[in-house]
Amino acid sequence: MKAFASDNYSGVHPEIMDALNHANTGHTGSYGADEITARTIKKFKALFGDEVEVFFVYNGTGANVLGLTAATQSYNAIICSELAHINVDESTAPEKFSGCKLIGIPTTNGKIYADQVENRIQRLGDQHHPQAKVISISQSTEYSTVYTAEEVKALSAVAKKYNMYLHMDGARISNAAVSLGQDFKTFTKDAGVDVLSFGGTKNGMMFGEAVVFFSTELSKQFAYIRKQGMQLHSKMRFISAQFEALLSNDLWKRNATHANQMAKRLEQALREVPQIKITQVVDGNGVFTIIPKEITEALQQEFYFYVWNDRTYECRLMCSFDTTEKEVDEFAEKAKALCSAL
Amino acid sequence: MKAFASDNYSGVHPEIMDALNHANTGHTGSYGADEITARTIKKFKALFGDEVEVFFVYNGTGANVLGLTAATQSYNAIICSELAHINVDESTAPEKFSGCKLIGIPTTNGKIYADQVENRIQRLGDQHHPQAKVISISQSTEYSTVYTAEEVKALSAVAKKYNMYLHMDGARISNAAVSLGQDFKTFTKDAGVDVLSFGGTKNGMMFGEAVVFFSTELSKQFAYIRKQGMQLHSKMRFISAQFEALLSNDLWKRNATHANQMAKRLEQALREVPQIKITQVVDGNGVFTIIPKEITEALQQEFYFYVWNDRTYECRLMCSFDTTEKEVDEFAEKAKALCSAL
Amino acid sequence: MKAFASDNYSGVHPEIMDALNHANTGHTGSYGADEITARTIKKFKALFGDEVEVFFVYNGTGANVLGLTAATQSYNAIICSELAHINVDESTAPEKFSGCKLIGIPTTNGKIYADQVENRIQRLGDQHHPQAKVISISQSTEYSTVYTAEEVKALSAVAKKYNMYLHMDGARISNAAVSLGQDFKTFTKDAGVDVLSFGGTKNGMMFGEAVVFFSTELSKQFAYIRKQGMQLHSKMRFISAQFEALLSNDLWKRNATHANQMAKRLEQALREVPQIKITQVVDGNGVFTIIPKEITEALQQEFYFYVWNDRTYECRLMCSFDTTEKEVDEFAEKAKALCSAL
Amino acid sequence: MKAFASDNYSGVHPEIMDALNHANTGHTGSYGADEITARTIKKFKALFGDEVEVFFVYNGTGANVLGLTAATQSYNAIICSELAHINVDESTAPEKFSGCKLIGIPTTNGKIYADQVENRIQRLGDQHHPQAKVISISQSTEYSTVYTAEEVKALSAVAKKYNMYLHMDGARISNAAVSLGQDFKTFTKDAGVDVLSFGGTKNGMMFGEAVVFFSTELSKQFAYIRKQGMQLHSKMRFISAQFEALLSNDLWKRNATHANQMAKRLEQALREVPQIKITQVVDGNGVFTIIPKEITEALQQEFYFYVWNDRTYECRLMCSFDTTEKEVDEFAEKAKALCSAL
Repeated sequence: MKAFASDNYSGVHPEIMDALNHANTGHTGSYGADEITARTIKKFKALFGDEVEVFFVYNGTGANVLGLTAATQSYNAIICSELAHINVDESTAPEKFSGCKLIGIPTTNGKIYADQVENRIQRLGDQHHPQAKVISISQSTEYSTVYTAEEVKALSAVAKKYNMYLHMDGARISNAAVSLGQDFKTFTKDAGVDVLSFGGTKNGMMFGEAVVFFSTELSKQFAYIRKQGMQLHSKMRFISAQFEALLSNDLWKRNATHANQMAKRLEQALREVPQIKITQVVDGNGVFTIIPKEITEALQQEFYFYVWNDRTYECRLMCSFDTTEKEVDEFAEKAKALCSAL
Repeated sequence: MKAFASDNYSGVHPEIMDALNHANTGHTGSYGADEITARTIKKFKALFGDEVEVFFVYNGTGANVLGLTAATQSYNAIICSELAHINVDESTAPEKFSGCKLIGIPTTNGKIYADQVENRIQRLGDQHHPQAKVISISQSTEYSTVYTAEEVKALSAVAKKYNMYLHMDGARISNAAVSLGQDFKTFTKDAGVDVLSFGGTKNGMMFGEAVVFFSTELSKQFAYIRKQGMQLHSKMRFISAQFEALLSNDLWKRNATHANQMAKRLEQALREVPQIKITQVVDGNGVFTIIPKEITEALQQEFYFYVWNDRTYECRLMCSFDTTEKEVDEFAEKAKALCSAL
Repeated sequence: MKAFASDNYSGVHPEIMDALNHANTGHTGSYGADEITARTIKKFKALFGDEVEVFFVYNGTGANVLGLTAATQSYNAIICSELAHINVDESTAPEKFSGCKLIGIPTTNGKIYADQVENRIQRLGDQHHPQAKVISISQSTEYSTVYTAEEVKALSAVAKKYNMYLHMDGARISNAAVSLGQDFKTFTKDAGVDVLSFGGTKNGMMFGEAVVFFSTELSKQFAYIRKQGMQLHSKMRFISAQFEALLSNDLWKRNATHANQMAKRLEQALREVPQIKITQVVDGNGVFTIIPKEITEALQQEFYFYVWNDRTYECRLMCSFDTTEKEVDEFAEKAKALCSAL
Repeated sequence: MKAFASDNYSGVHPEIMDALNHANTGHTGSYGADEITARTIKKFKALFGDEVEVFFVYNGTGANVLGLTAATQSYNAIICSELAHINVDESTAPEKFSGCKLIGIPTTNGKIYADQVENRIQRLGDQHHPQAKVISISQSTEYSTVYTAEEVKALSAVAKKYNMYLHMDGARISNAAVSLGQDFKTFTKDAGVDVLSFGGTKNGMMFGEAVVFFSTELSKQFAYIRKQGMQLHSKMRFISAQFEALLSNDLWKRNATHANQMAKRLEQALREVPQIKITQVVDGNGVFTIIPKEITEALQQEFYFYVWNDRTYECRLMCSFDTTEKEVDEFAEKAKALCSAL
């Protein structure tokens, strides 16, 4: 059963699997002291500039929480969307590990905007109040929408104005880059992002994410933070090799382009069904939609997907690097047929 | 360059790599809701009994820290060997995440004994003093020595006497089982262990460890602790598939047997060199030895290994599932030759 | 310069100062092992019932944070008003110490209601999401409004329905009791509160608050939590003696009655000034009011008070046990005169 | 019943009680924004130099834990005596709040020495290992012994050599100053201490300690750390007024001198009893002694004191500012009489 449940229901892209198989030769230094890791970090520097610092971790929660910890003291606050992964899907890992308060801004499309954020920055210098220090955004967002470079810059300007940092949760950053038609650097480093979680797992890797520091004063002690955060892998080459493959031959782009196209195809097909409402702009690889409640169960017998909001019955349909046109078409046809029978 | 630096310098055993390749088919539930995970947990239950609870995590530090967190409140103390991995090689992850104090007992062979531990349990019920709650041992130890089931039982008796728990860091548990010639259950569950870190990475896996709860009252909330601890993998099948392979066809035993045999072979060869002193009983897959300081550098030009103790110049020589007789013999010969030339 | 800035700008009530002087005789057991502490705990039991457990701490933040910690695991969430002291005026102490996420509910009058709270309890049992465990309310609220016993009961019913606890920040609980005309027990224990911060400092004490547990399963380990939380006083008799005085001869009631009456008097006087708007119901000892921006500075030259909201220019005028009718009248007259001159 | 149990069994010195009474006049700014606090901080600056920063907190645990937190990151280690208050008498507050590991050095007289400390500083720069950052000493020690300024300087030299800080737990710093016959500055700031817990409660105050920063880069964010640490008092003038009294008219010195003299008198009297052994040099206000086990219970019926070590039966006899010669003599006589009857 193929699925629209999540891009982490998919497996590993064959080119990445090949890279893992090829990396499996003999002994090499552990904890990152190996050649593959050195080469892969160079690949990141080729994307973002020589002065960035890159650290590999196990998963997105690790990347986000440790990146945020590097940018904060425990009496700080982190401003994000109310729907941000760090706010609703990472247990209380951000609070427990960083000590900080998360301030969630209501959003209808997954994005937060500069004026909203500025409005929530208050009582700086007041010892009684959590001191806002980081703005965190997801790119693409949890609603699969994508910030423009200008929107990112506007947020960065607010951050700079108040001596704060801008963090980007890029679990689906490749989908955002493809959607924008821009290279990574344009809407991250060049737009004022200070620290980035660069996602791998949701774009075809088995495990592994990268924390990329553009403000390298934040990265000086990060090796300790990563180890203490239980996110330092011993056989590091097996994360590095995956990233090397992902960043080679535009694999990241091919995967994300395909996933985004499948989402677009699905959107277009569903728009033809009058009983189904598309609720969000489809920038990335997810389609958010309100499907008649009566047909959801029947649909779920053939396709994995999640009801995203129990109250509105909004559903999330995620496409992946390996979603096929056939699956998309079958889903749309089934939905159409079920709706017609209502 | 093959190596004696660490069992995590080695790669992935081919049977495990095969399992990863085979697991890579289509979509499946994430976060453990997949068939491979279900099958693999059954394999653990076959080893330890149906009532145990098993959770997969990324690495040994994660397994140890989260298992200890599950067994403690933040005002507790954890008694371990002064050389324990949790005490010296996991940054301050145990303290930061659990809040607890670690009390290290001096050791010459890596083991701690029931009477030593009992001696350090004091001021129970005194609100001012860290309340001892867990005894943590490594099996095999950081000195590659192995606790007998009787030694474990004696520690468990102390734990029970004071309403404490017994934790075992089993990063190299397979090497211990082979050394003892016993099944896992005999010296863990049956000997009174409450929670076990069951190691995979050092015995041929790419990544992944298991936390096994024998006291299942400790595991009730562990899913939350694991998620909060940033140790819940999305594409879980790829940890499970590795463990399934490791526990199939006695792969765990074949790998550990080989590594232990290589350590024995190395020990025997080095014992023939009068200038070299073996410092520890070779129970598991490591040989600890004092090599003349003058030859270390020359040796390290051909073989990876660590000087374990800068003051005594004790060196650690770890063997792995893929260490070859040839490598062992070449190391011994080289060492012998260098010593002769002194 | 007497003041309407805060009830903690006032000093210590003379009867409490007397009690401190009288308690200062010779040696006695420390950390609570003294007769005054024993007597004072009996006074609390007389108010709330024999089965409650009482612990003294230094301040309101300590009482709140440690009481909440006792009722939670670190992966939990605490639901409170967006304006709650724990949410905006205790730095990130709740997050850092408990590990929990605070979920703030927007409020116009300082209160939160059962249906609002129930609406925010979601994804229970989902390991990815912070697990709601405590509802926390302030009585009286930060807007000096007071929950009725029925409102508290309705919140308690929600808490019980979801296996949660109800926490009350009673920094100004005496003002609430006087406002309601009820004894403490009616709107706390009898209304389903599980753990209460019982305020002393804002009602005439020098320092000290009490954590009162009605759900005594929560208090079993609290002695350790208090010590670890740096809130255990050595010369405990000097907190206890203050509480003994506060709970003797209805001092708590006399103080709170006076403060509330002064707030009422102030409200009535200000209502006669057409340019001044009273923004909140005056249940307790504070008056919230929008004063013309042009006169604020002139007023603040003679009276301490805070602009509560920089955007709306809402001001907070707090009355205390020692606020005099003269001060109230002078303030109102001055405000009136300044407004007339606009 | 007067006592030798602890200097916190005593009450408040009359001059300090007077200061509290005098401070209780009308309204004043809270959280330290008052004149008494300003004056008292000047008194500290007169002692230590204008450039020091001073913060008042509630108790010794708060002063120690927050001072150490200001000097560390959570992946650091703190080296102290195995008997240090922070290591055995503050629950796990240091670990939980700072995240750091405490490394306890065995001691027979309560002191730790530069060479011992240097021996425990290892693996700096190794991400796997807790990074030593603070040396913490108690002055006077838990054994009532006193470091010379030279001993402090030697420790400071080690700290500087490794880019570490030197912390002093001065819960009984006045007793140390009197014992050394030096002003505070000589053996703190001038000897290289970076952050000091300056004790008040054990020398005649009701509550309150001060954190004094000599390395003011450590104090920049301390206001936030104190608030988050639940150690910021609202009615601050009542801590400040006590310190103002303590630092006026040499009250600190008179109190400590008396307490130390009583300890000396007690030591001399007990040395005349052959069955009683004095175990530690009596530098400060405590006498450590092995009293025959058979007479302890009878003695404890008339005098409070603690058996300090259950195994050796070493007892601790603490003198305070209000210990009388009569009490000392009665204790010695009683002990003598009981011993004679053995």
